[in-house]
Amino acid sequence: MPENRIATVRPVAEAEATGRVAEIFADIKRTKQIDFVPALWRTLATNPVELELVWTTLKTLMHPDAVGRRSQLEPTTREMIALAVSATNGCSYCVNSHTAALRKLGASTEMLGEVLAIASLFNMTNALADGYQIEPDVLPPLE
Amino acid sequence: MPENRIATVRPVAEAEATGRVAEIFADIKRTKQIDFVPALWRTLATNPVELELVWTTLKTLMHPDAVGRRSQLEPTTREMIALAVSATNGCSYCVNSHTAALRKLGASTEMLGEVLAIASLFNMTNALADGYQIEPDVLPPLE
Amino acid sequence: MPENRIATVRPVAEAEATGRVAEIFADIKRTKQIDFVPALWRTLATNPVELELVWTTLKTLMHPDAVGRRSQLEPTTREMIALAVSATNGCSYCVNSHTAALRKLGASTEMLGEVLAIASLFNMTNALADGYQIEPDVLPPLE
Amino acid sequence: MPENRIATVRPVAEAEATGRVAEIFADIKRTKQIDFVPALWRTLATNPVELELVWTTLKTLMHPDAVGRRSQLEPTTREMIALAVSATNGCSYCVNSHTAALRKLGASTEMLGEVLAIASLFNMTNALADGYQIEPDVLPPLE
Amino acid sequence: MPENRIATVRPVAEAEATGRVAEIFADIKRTKQIDFVPALWRTLATNPVELELVWTTLKTLMHPDAVGRRSQLEPTTREMIALAVSATNGCSYCVNSHTAALRKLGASTEMLGEVLAIASLFNMTNALADGYQIEPDVLPPLE
Amino acid sequence: MPENRIATVRPVAEAEATGRVAEIFADIKRTKQIDFVPALWRTLATNPVELELVWTTLKTLMHPDAVGRRSQLEPTTREMIALAVSATNGCSYCVNSHTAALRKLGASTEMLGEVLAIASLFNMTNALADGYQIEPDVLPPLE
Repeated sequence: MPENRIATVRPVAEAEATGRVAEIFADIKRTKQIDFVPALWRTLATNPVELELVWTTLKTLMHPDAVGRRSQLEPTTREMIALAVSATNGCSYCVNSHTAALRKLGASTEMLGEVLAIASLFNMTNALADGYQIEPDVLPPLE
Repeated sequence: MPENRIATVRPVAEAEATGRVAEIFADIKRTKQIDFVPALWRTLATNPVELELVWTTLKTLMHPDAVGRRSQLEPTTREMIALAVSATNGCSYCVNSHTAALRKLGASTEMLGEVLAIASLFNMTNALADGYQIEPDVLPPLE
Repeated sequence: MPENRIATVRPVAEAEATGRVAEIFADIKRTKQIDFVPALWRTLATNPVELELVWTTLKTLMHPDAVGRRSQLEPTTREMIALAVSATNGCSYCVNSHTAALRKLGASTEMLGEVLAIASLFNMTNALADGYQIEPDVLPPLE
Repeated sequence: MPENRIATVRPVAEAEATGRVAEIFADIKRTKQIDFVPALWRTLATNPVELELVWTTLKTLMHPDAVGRRSQLEPTTREMIALAVSATNGCSYCVNSHTAALRKLGASTEMLGEVLAIASLFNMTNALADGYQIEPDVLPPLE
Repeated sequence: MPENRIATVRPVAEAEATGRVAEIFADIKRTKQIDFVPALWRTLATNPVELELVWTTLKTLMHPDAVGRRSQLEPTTREMIALAVSATNGCSYCVNSHTAALRKLGASTEMLGEVLAIASLFNMTNALADGYQIEPDVLPPLE
Repeated sequence: MPENRIATVRPVAEAEATGRVAEIFADIKRTKQIDFVPALWRTLATNPVELELVWTTLKTLMHPDAVGRRSQLEPTTREMIALAVSATNGCSYCVNSHTAALRKLGASTEMLGEVLAIASLFNMTNALADGYQIEPDVLPPLE
């Protein structure tokens, strides 16, 4: 039975990591409270500059407590946005990853279904609005 | 100065609507508590079957109280998902519309910024996961 | 050999369905003249409200005879549009599903090839038009 | 009032075209039975190699009679696929262009509405199938 | 004549910027050797955390000399990748911005045309590969 | 273990090819200096008209020496654009194929990482620019 996705680089195993990469791996496990380093991060570790940039961005936006930032959104809301974007882009790894994160935060199958129902509805209306080239309604003045 | 978007059909004016279309227009204004019918709905009114299907779906998912359904999500969370999808698809009408809806629900520029920051972050990681063809991590068993 | 897509919820087996879900499952098989319920519908059955909304929309638009609606399009044309959209979005399940539906309607490999050739051509021109930010030509007045 | 799309190159005016570009411009007008060269082709004329490649591909696939090819699809079906792809990608120029082509072929607002309704429905189901990572159903053997 | 894109927040004017935002504005002008702050950055300034994250990422990846990093790619190659992505996504602001950057680096209309021709070709083949669900060829072992 | 991608047509084996298809297969191997015909081309061979159109386009744009054209871009730059587009679209076959091509041209894991880092960055900024509906900056006059 053929595989149909073939990773294009060899991810860095946790045991192989040294220096800054090892520090980031440890920070990922500590911040996300997980006991393994997900494949995305082990793959980005083949390019340590990018590993650091993406982790800094994700940590700041998705784990605000860890950087002393006050977020306006709940953790589940943040993961729901992530899942909606990933479903829209059809990114398999990302859908699996953000579904797992939502499950860990306690989301039920029903809640997951509601997120995907809403995301898919707006993929429908987006195609309609663009397909008819609908002009925006007049908006309230900017804040 | 040239326009660069040209609506491809003539939207139905509110005063022109009759029968089922007029009923749906009234329901849209009542349900959304607005005093005009947005251009999307007046455009879909050129195809009344589709107007009814899309309005039924949107009313059920986005205005659960109006249909006696219990939603697991807050109204602002639902609109944030809509904005994240619309930003990902680059749909101008939709971005304007869901931003206006979020403003009406009280979202600040800061909160809007956080939604777009998260949505854009995951457009970045989606491209990385797909660009490296990363294999999913092992997931917890399904519920 | 690792799998690389992992369903995120457990689909509802046909034998498990009761009440409204069982009725919709029966309607799907009758309307589509198939002897099993495809995975999309068994998955949506984990969220019965969405199952009903999506099935109502799809039945109305894709099986107009079943709802007494007069369609302007042939059944094969409707499935070709579905396949073109699914190829554009890169949705694996959807490409497989709409290809199977086209085959069942009698489409040859040659006809399938023509649909995909046209869909892919316009993915090329879309990128050119957007990449140069080309202004629309003046259009004829709206009907 | 600000414009919000700015063409990134200066299109070639019809009167400026010489040699192979002038020949292709003439062929476009003759084949499409129009009396001007649309902006897409005048823009591609800034890169004559690409003008020739894209025109050859489009002429072969969309104007089969002009090249003595037998198509399995009706002209309106071909334009409907083009519109569905363009709506899915949100390409303004392309939506305007293929809507104009469908109008010229006699498509009514109702028929246009049906194409967009179907295209948008499958943008919804694509997001659901990808958002749940649904496994394909078992397909019939290939032809 | 109606506008059809409406900015959803009021960008921060250069004269309004203070503190960290003013520092980043100055760094943007110095690093990019331009005498104004582009609208993207003035918009992100409504969310200073995001302004800092996106600027750090862009400065590191696109202006490696400014951070003492050795890039494997030429500046024009980097901007070509940016334009190809923006054309694929149909992002107007981004296409305009990266075209301007390529012009500043000396790219001719011919070179711009070649980038867009290649980007659009692969949007065509992407739709074909996904539309047929083509299995990957066997790849050489990973490095 | 279920497969999750199912090719929708049976590709043409090299030994089966005759006439024009066999000639193109030979030209592909000669031009690309490979000893097998990749699955994309064997699949397109089920529709010989499309095989010829796509191969002519790809050969002209990606193998300019083979057609006596002068390209402004390096071979690696061309493949990097191809990879960036494929990662943006999430096309598995295409990502695998263009990664293999880049490897063959000598690209290191580090260089591959830089391409994907840049492509993913601009998927992030594209979503921000579209999500805020940012107006283009004033551009320099067209060349």
